[in-house]
Amino acid sequence: MPSPALRHADLAGLSAQELREIIRAGRYDRHTAGLAAGKLQCNLAILPEAHALDFLRFCQRNPKPCPVVGVSETGDPMLPTLGRDIDIRTDVPRYRVFRHGDLTEEVTDITSVWRDDLVTVALGCSFTFENALMKAGIPMRHIERDQTVPMYRSSLQLVPAGPFGGEMVVTMRPVARDRVEDAHRISAAFPQAHGSPIGMGDPVGVGISDLNRPDWGEPVEVRADEVPVYWACGVTPQNVLQAAKLAVCITHAPGHMLIADVAEDAETTVLPH
Amino acid sequence: MPSPALRHADLAGLSAQELREIIRAGRYDRHTAGLAAGKLQCNLAILPEAHALDFLRFCQRNPKPCPVVGVSETGDPMLPTLGRDIDIRTDVPRYRVFRHGDLTEEVTDITSVWRDDLVTVALGCSFTFENALMKAGIPMRHIERDQTVPMYRSSLQLVPAGPFGGEMVVTMRPVARDRVEDAHRISAAFPQAHGSPIGMGDPVGVGISDLNRPDWGEPVEVRADEVPVYWACGVTPQNVLQAAKLAVCITHAPGHMLIADVAEDAETTVLPH
Repeated sequence: MPSPALRHADLAGLSAQELREIIRAGRYDRHTAGLAAGKLQCNLAILPEAHALDFLRFCQRNPKPCPVVGVSETGDPMLPTLGRDIDIRTDVPRYRVFRHGDLTEEVTDITSVWRDDLVTVALGCSFTFENALMKAGIPMRHIERDQTVPMYRSSLQLVPAGPFGGEMVVTMRPVARDRVEDAHRISAAFPQAHGSPIGMGDPVGVGISDLNRPDWGEPVEVRADEVPVYWACGVTPQNVLQAAKLAVCITHAPGHMLIADVAEDAETTVLPH
Repeated sequence: MPSPALRHADLAGLSAQELREIIRAGRYDRHTAGLAAGKLQCNLAILPEAHALDFLRFCQRNPKPCPVVGVSETGDPMLPTLGRDIDIRTDVPRYRVFRHGDLTEEVTDITSVWRDDLVTVALGCSFTFENALMKAGIPMRHIERDQTVPMYRSSLQLVPAGPFGGEMVVTMRPVARDRVEDAHRISAAFPQAHGSPIGMGDPVGVGISDLNRPDWGEPVEVRADEVPVYWACGVTPQNVLQAAKLAVCITHAPGHMLIADVAEDAETTVLPH
């Protein structure tokens, strides 16, 4: 008899490894925000080795939207530098499979899709700096309201590499005018998680025509004493991968992240060995 | 009639681009320490594309000795994210060419060695954090004495990737006991330049049997009120490349660095475009 499915609230206090075991067993397939406090969570890009060098070059040239925190061996589903016994085929709650640029499957296990030529690239995510901002008393309105952060296609051109390029996707979070400098300084300390803001104030400056109409996520009110602050977003590499129309690539489903054993404030994202 | 050769003292106050033009013209082939104040200087690893993915994986897994700050297109000698018109075949004062692990040539121009399958990987160097430490009033004895920093083969195992692996090379700088914490904090702010120390105190702890007998460079006195502090060293990737016995690879000659247009305290090492 299979174990019953678990809810987000059931998972409070569990370690990263315990959570991955539950996810691997198929007992949890929802979002990972707030789980395994203090541990790094990762965006995921899995692609054929033939494109991996170009993708790593792309990430190196666009470190704010694409901060690389782990890279697998070719064909090896394990990620030992990020955590104990991570099997990338099973340890993420929900995946998206793209073929020639089309989303063809959303699944909770990619064992049947796995190929010997796939390379996993793990990328830092915004949960890390959001946690640091909240700890410093800078509230995140979208989290308070249990909404998805608003995301926008910006006009900021990415530095291309091979088939990868396009425009940066950015998130917006309203910050009280007198905390904007703190928000900049605090997030700058997390280069592995998008780093400092890429802009603030007038949305037209970053190519956003209407803050109330995000391309993904839900709009968030900006009050009179607040400034809209823009950060590079981890949806960027997913978009770029999809636009490159590779024969196959796999990402996590938005919000359904890989939970690593690495501390989110570690100086490097490589576990001591 | 060729222009006369220049000395280090002639180059004070010149910009990174002016220096590269002089180097490219064959008018300067000496060390670059202290030149183009405030600009990032880079270690160099040039290798065939067939090994570039493994080498980038290796660097990602060993970010302290191998902080990647730029990667070229395959076969393209330009590095536009690091500086204007950088031609890596001519813009470094002195190169070392290795064939099957043997140093076969030390040259001031690699145009005749260049191949269409070569990839350039630029890596941060210790000049960056040394400058920051000296600005904070933490003296660097090897610089005061015009010596080369002492370097040691440590017992610290690198995380391997493909043919790349081995032990970390570390540098030692004596720091006054009451400034050790400052030295840690200041250098940690430069992940693109080896970051915080990898150890301090007892050399046996990092596998060094005798501080007075460095493997490269010259020994430096550690006084009674000082602590020996160890940082990851940019000679590591050179050693690792040599040990991998690739058919061909090219590095800079020690101390003869690529001078980039990127500010050494920039949040990312990618020029705004």
